[in-house]
Amino acid sequence: MARIGILGAGSWGTALAILLHDNGHDVTVWSIHEKEVEMLNTTRRHESKLPGVEIPEGILFTTDMKETMSDKDVCVLAVPSPFIRSTCQKMKSYVRAGQIIVNVAKGIEESTLYTLTDIIEEEMPYADACVLSGPSHAEEVSRRLPTTCVVSARTRKTAEYLQSVFVSPVFRVYISPDMLGIELGGALKNVIALAAGTADGLGYGDNTKAALITRGIAEIARLGIKMGGRPETFYGLTGIGDLIVTCASVHSRNRKAGYLMGKGYTMQEAMDEVQMVVEGVYSAKAALTLAQKYQVEMPIVEQVNKVLFENKNAEEAVKELMIRDKKMESDSVQW
Amino acid sequence: MARIGILGAGSWGTALAILLHDNGHDVTVWSIHEKEVEMLNTTRRHESKLPGVEIPEGILFTTDMKETMSDKDVCVLAVPSPFIRSTCQKMKSYVRAGQIIVNVAKGIEESTLYTLTDIIEEEMPYADACVLSGPSHAEEVSRRLPTTCVVSARTRKTAEYLQSVFVSPVFRVYISPDMLGIELGGALKNVIALAAGTADGLGYGDNTKAALITRGIAEIARLGIKMGGRPETFYGLTGIGDLIVTCASVHSRNRKAGYLMGKGYTMQEAMDEVQMVVEGVYSAKAALTLAQKYQVEMPIVEQVNKVLFENKNAEEAVKELMIRDKKMESDSVQW
Repeated sequence: MARIGILGAGSWGTALAILLHDNGHDVTVWSIHEKEVEMLNTTRRHESKLPGVEIPEGILFTTDMKETMSDKDVCVLAVPSPFIRSTCQKMKSYVRAGQIIVNVAKGIEESTLYTLTDIIEEEMPYADACVLSGPSHAEEVSRRLPTTCVVSARTRKTAEYLQSVFVSPVFRVYISPDMLGIELGGALKNVIALAAGTADGLGYGDNTKAALITRGIAEIARLGIKMGGRPETFYGLTGIGDLIVTCASVHSRNRKAGYLMGKGYTMQEAMDEVQMVVEGVYSAKAALTLAQKYQVEMPIVEQVNKVLFENKNAEEAVKELMIRDKKMESDSVQW
Repeated sequence: MARIGILGAGSWGTALAILLHDNGHDVTVWSIHEKEVEMLNTTRRHESKLPGVEIPEGILFTTDMKETMSDKDVCVLAVPSPFIRSTCQKMKSYVRAGQIIVNVAKGIEESTLYTLTDIIEEEMPYADACVLSGPSHAEEVSRRLPTTCVVSARTRKTAEYLQSVFVSPVFRVYISPDMLGIELGGALKNVIALAAGTADGLGYGDNTKAALITRGIAEIARLGIKMGGRPETFYGLTGIGDLIVTCASVHSRNRKAGYLMGKGYTMQEAMDEVQMVVEGVYSAKAALTLAQKYQVEMPIVEQVNKVLFENKNAEEAVKELMIRDKKMESDSVQW
């Protein structure tokens, strides 16, 4: 049994709390919202985020960050990506040297172009920052549907320890040393999901979406490899796997925001309607800046930025992607 | 304008006929079924296969193979994979030296382990065998929804010619020299689609399916690269792209057959219900034989074969795939 503190009682934080409690661990979940904590402790439900799911009695919800962090074997950081830095600043006085902190959010900080574990390591250089990622909609994990994920850490020892903590008969956990590749794939897929959702909103079919997903992972991999990630990672569970689930699923808020934009909503109207943090909107600009910095062609990311921030017509953006003047599928394969 | 003969008036043959007619070509479609030809020529609809789609008047349907083949710039072979060899034998007396024959079916011949263009080249060594593949459900192409495909041929010249014949504002065509990789990806994805459909039938969610798709393309690529295909192909439109569309789509008969097996149908009951050729059932055995021949691990293909031909319980097969004793996501990436 491990003692686990989870920061963030959103859908993913709560679903992971259920998984870890099922696995026999001692689980405390922190939220900044007093009302949310009260609701969770009394109703044992999070209807707006995990409808129909019962939260086991043994999980404690609290607004007391110190209680959540003290004497914990593992700390899970499950706040939305825009709040990772501020949460790190709040929590750091409770973090001891070598504390394992598992980031489960996905994003890139726009101002610094840091990955989320970069932020954790900058704010708390004495902590042991790790990441858990993969094709894992919270709603399905909370309903115990078979799911696969990948854990990465600076050392194999920490990764294997976390594997043993998270693994269950319905939650398969692999390990990988490629933290950078995993985080880039997780952050950038949300941008592609906006594009895939837009295509859906425009009434296009599965053919169009499959093309966007395939070309999307290709451009993510192009950038990610140039930044130091491993090709295997982008074509693995945390890359293409997560991209597929995000683009296909009715649960994805990024896909849904794109869908609404395909229906003619502005970015702000779409975000208001979705009511949760649409991480792809935050990552889109960062992705474009990275593409320019590393001189990588990212046509889908470019068009998403134009639709989001320059009021470009969504239909025109998708059309432009379709009719790009390119003959060979892959320039590296020649007759 | 090109003169085009299409062999096969199924959903794909008919959808391509509409595309090519839209592109201004002269199109004749052959079918072995007299009733089908009569229905198509009179009603201009193929309700059971392309519901609601109107077939333009200019397309001629016939049971006369000679008429379909004579003096044609391009011949499109759109019969189901199990009938490719017999159709080649029927058509070969009408085929002149250098005749371009574009295979658009997907499969591997069980007895020889040949790809479909291998069969064409064996039966008609004087023909110019080519392939068109990609994430392209016929129903959506016939409704002019944006679609991408790849054409491959032995020479760049033929590939570029076919690109100019097929390309349209809603049908983007890339070229590639990797005929083998394209054909292997197309044939093997149907086996993985059976597994993905089975997971759906068992009530599992998008997380499970994304895991199966990701691990599925990995095992297809492992085999395909060992056989001489290019890695880029398996992670491109005709590989992962086509696999995604097949596993996600309500149109896929392979996915549907798997779905029914997840619901408890036997293979035969599922095939009877789907009423079209389920190519994955034919390719599953061939894939397993290839895996053994090239000594490649293909756990999903193995389990699909057990469910199809050894009456293994589908739920157990999926569970076994989930709990395989494997720690690292990719053995080639180490700390």
